[in-house]
Amino acid sequence: MAARGGIDLGGTKIQAVVVDEAHAVLGQARRPTPTKGGPADVAEAMAEAMRDAAAGASIETGELAHVGVGSPGTVDAARGSVSSARNLPDWAGTYPLGATLAGKLGAPVAVGNDVQVATDAEAALGAGRDHDSMLGVFWGTGVGGGIVLNGRPWLGRGGAGEIGHVVVQVDGAQCPCGRRGCMEAYAGRNALERDARELHAKGEHTELFKIARKRGRERLTSGIWAAALEREDALATKLIDRAVAMLAVGIASCDNVLDVEIIILGGGLGVRLGQPYADRIAEAMLPHLFFSDRPPPVVVAALGDLGGAIGASLLPPP
Amino acid sequence: MAARGGIDLGGTKIQAVVVDEAHAVLGQARRPTPTKGGPADVAEAMAEAMRDAAAGASIETGELAHVGVGSPGTVDAARGSVSSARNLPDWAGTYPLGATLAGKLGAPVAVGNDVQVATDAEAALGAGRDHDSMLGVFWGTGVGGGIVLNGRPWLGRGGAGEIGHVVVQVDGAQCPCGRRGCMEAYAGRNALERDARELHAKGEHTELFKIARKRGRERLTSGIWAAALEREDALATKLIDRAVAMLAVGIASCDNVLDVEIIILGGGLGVRLGQPYADRIAEAMLPHLFFSDRPPPVVVAALGDLGGAIGASLLPPP
Repeated sequence: MAARGGIDLGGTKIQAVVVDEAHAVLGQARRPTPTKGGPADVAEAMAEAMRDAAAGASIETGELAHVGVGSPGTVDAARGSVSSARNLPDWAGTYPLGATLAGKLGAPVAVGNDVQVATDAEAALGAGRDHDSMLGVFWGTGVGGGIVLNGRPWLGRGGAGEIGHVVVQVDGAQCPCGRRGCMEAYAGRNALERDARELHAKGEHTELFKIARKRGRERLTSGIWAAALEREDALATKLIDRAVAMLAVGIASCDNVLDVEIIILGGGLGVRLGQPYADRIAEAMLPHLFFSDRPPPVVVAALGDLGGAIGASLLPPP
Repeated sequence: MAARGGIDLGGTKIQAVVVDEAHAVLGQARRPTPTKGGPADVAEAMAEAMRDAAAGASIETGELAHVGVGSPGTVDAARGSVSSARNLPDWAGTYPLGATLAGKLGAPVAVGNDVQVATDAEAALGAGRDHDSMLGVFWGTGVGGGIVLNGRPWLGRGGAGEIGHVVVQVDGAQCPCGRRGCMEAYAGRNALERDARELHAKGEHTELFKIARKRGRERLTSGIWAAALEREDALATKLIDRAVAMLAVGIASCDNVLDVEIIILGGGLGVRLGQPYADRIAEAMLPHLFFSDRPPPVVVAALGDLGGAIGASLLPPP
């Protein structure tokens, strides 16, 4: 018995899994990411999700060989600490996430970058497993990117893959990162919600906020966007169409530089909207690809919503 | 005695060198690239440049161990052929450049991609020699890119590094490649000359074409742009300022993805305008860099104008 745990810490939700040696999922649990409090509250919610997933697998967290965590922000893997996680509550400083969770769970905890562990999972077990080079595009709260070249992650000086901050429009829209014209400023869920609120306040009709209220949500989750698109909500359609167009421009630009074998679309929105939207992005990339006669395939992450947590479980023990 | 030859085939000029085993330049010669005729005329001009360089080194071309060629267009290294070299006269089809030159020179000829051999030269002998990762930016007729990661060229599926076709402005200016909003559409010398002609025809004053006439040139070479900038020509200054701004946006976007140790600025304009312009590009990149607290250095290609030819001489024998 060598079950391992994996936790994907997202801006909206915490996903935990327990997997066996063959990476099969034995148990899983999900909790909303606390929007108030601070890192200690987030760590407690993560521990609770992990306990629930372990209960689903009929084991105790202390029996896990180890637990991996995929986290946003700046991760110091050696120390297991996380700094500047700007989409999480009151997390501007550095917090000892690994040590805190290890204490709560009674198992060793390794911490890695959320996008990189999700990319590694797709490369090892998912849509990238037959390819030597890939670009993972994580379309969710923001737009993250993970790169695999020659079968190995490309991390640069530690900060490679920030594809959400490829500039698609000089002096363009304000990005949540503070810069202008980034792809994420048009495609990330934070930017989409900001623009939906602004246009709604100006009088444009939309069902988005009605759906959110019915579901008891403060924020527009990927599921809420998907539901609005299904109802052919005009505002949601307009904003997601813009996101698709800008994702296509930014991803095509990245591929003109990298020329990878496959593009893998993950993240909350990517997984929720699925292959029809991956196909739309692929189509919209064509006018911007330098080698448009041999475009890379664009496929949805094979591990779906669980990719981040499964990827975290693949982290080596601390 | 194992002297080698190297030829850089550019859209404007042909540069030939003879180097010794330590890569020291024993002889060099330059000729304008024919603007009329076809591939056979270009090949003859290349052979003449190589003969002149060999004469400067006091040897015959038949004594060279081998000759390397860096060529634009699509290179089939195994066959030594070049296709679709759109900046060269009547070169839409495939031409056996290696075999033709080997016959003329009496030495084996290897053919490689012009941008890649120039990048490899900077990585092996130039500004990148102490770095494991670099992005070469070749600012000339167009804007080419060469990538080195983990000390080795990254070629993707054969087409990586097309940084000139990173989109910096959706639905922006027409690029010589036919697409819209590419970095090259604002920064490449072909685009700059097109815009200068158009603005001059509309009545904007410029010395650019007067300088060209004095020098007996039909096209605006890098030297002509440099001379106009020295005279504080308003139109030349405006267009080069725009090029610097757009190069900064595009290079910063690439570095947000790649996060390399060093950016090396080469190409006709890059080498001619030199480190002051590399510094301006570096400064203008800061607002677009995701990790702006540790920007990569931007330095001019150490091998200067001869980098392409020296890089070609480094190609393995065919």
